[in-house]
Amino acid sequence: MKEGNFCCHKTTERSEKEYKSLMNRLSRIEGQIRGIKGMVERNVYCTDILIQVAAVNAALNSFNKELLAEHIRNCVVRDIREGKDETIEELVVILQKLMK
Amino acid sequence: MKEGNFCCHKTTERSEKEYKSLMNRLSRIEGQIRGIKGMVERNVYCTDILIQVAAVNAALNSFNKELLAEHIRNCVVRDIREGKDETIEELVVILQKLMK
Amino acid sequence: MKEGNFCCHKTTERSEKEYKSLMNRLSRIEGQIRGIKGMVERNVYCTDILIQVAAVNAALNSFNKELLAEHIRNCVVRDIREGKDETIEELVVILQKLMK
Amino acid sequence: MKEGNFCCHKTTERSEKEYKSLMNRLSRIEGQIRGIKGMVERNVYCTDILIQVAAVNAALNSFNKELLAEHIRNCVVRDIREGKDETIEELVVILQKLMK
Repeated sequence: MKEGNFCCHKTTERSEKEYKSLMNRLSRIEGQIRGIKGMVERNVYCTDILIQVAAVNAALNSFNKELLAEHIRNCVVRDIREGKDETIEELVVILQKLMK
Repeated sequence: MKEGNFCCHKTTERSEKEYKSLMNRLSRIEGQIRGIKGMVERNVYCTDILIQVAAVNAALNSFNKELLAEHIRNCVVRDIREGKDETIEELVVILQKLMK
Repeated sequence: MKEGNFCCHKTTERSEKEYKSLMNRLSRIEGQIRGIKGMVERNVYCTDILIQVAAVNAALNSFNKELLAEHIRNCVVRDIREGKDETIEELVVILQKLMK
Repeated sequence: MKEGNFCCHKTTERSEKEYKSLMNRLSRIEGQIRGIKGMVERNVYCTDILIQVAAVNAALNSFNKELLAEHIRNCVVRDIREGKDETIEELVVILQKLMK
């Protein structure tokens, strides 16, 4: 029970707007992946597939940036104000992962 | 049928083994994206989602590397031997995109 | 003296240990760049140079991670506690830059 | 003696124009690194330093892209035409390193 009294897992309540934005991004990315599967099935030329994969990478990166910004503005700021300093180290660690 | 028989679009015949390897990678990535949608639906904590997205990025990167290696070993080498020098510039351009 | 005593520019006091660690990293990187210049002067083979540049990129990335971690642990935490919320948006913006 | 009869190291003859372009890029990067050292010495605010480091990373990336393009257009194409197929695998390996 690391996080809170009633819960065994940390959760994040997101606003309806934020939730929809994140889900829309993921649905679009899922569609892009299916599109790339179709390209491999139809023997599409390698370079055309590589360009599509670069587009998915960019889309995932945008998703990541949105989620990270939300995380900092909400969870991190709240936890620092409440003295839950473990969230600071957690942020440092996740950023090291994302910046490799 | 963008890449069919009567078309000027370039295609790449891939070996059965290569085809399966690429499709398996994509199916796994598709599953990972669906997993992340489930995490957003269940209000999973931001950091846990960010870690999963980093894993998808790494998986896409591995897909890219495999496809690019195949492309160089087969298409690029063959085209250079056949004097189709436009493939060289095409490779330079796609690498600039992938290395940003 | 852009960042002196009578100036509105933000400064960061770093511990002796942190200062030395950052300066040592930068001196090493400067040496690596000079090494690469020597390689170009001696007509060294492209691939060998590319490997060295990849090493410099990794070293710069490590410098960045160390500085960012220090920034979050010290400046960001202090500013949030003091109610200087503009530091939060500033962190979000710099992270978007670093994650591209 | 992997590469040729009279030489123990592979070398690349670069045109005067290419040589100057690469050296100018490296000298500018060296100057940027020295600039960052000066910033650390003057206790410049972390975020301002992080922005400068991002600029150096972009400059190194541009250097890399130029050198890689030159390598493919010259060394790789020539070696494939001369049947030196080991250059293909070498290119695949270096790209895996650069795309991480």
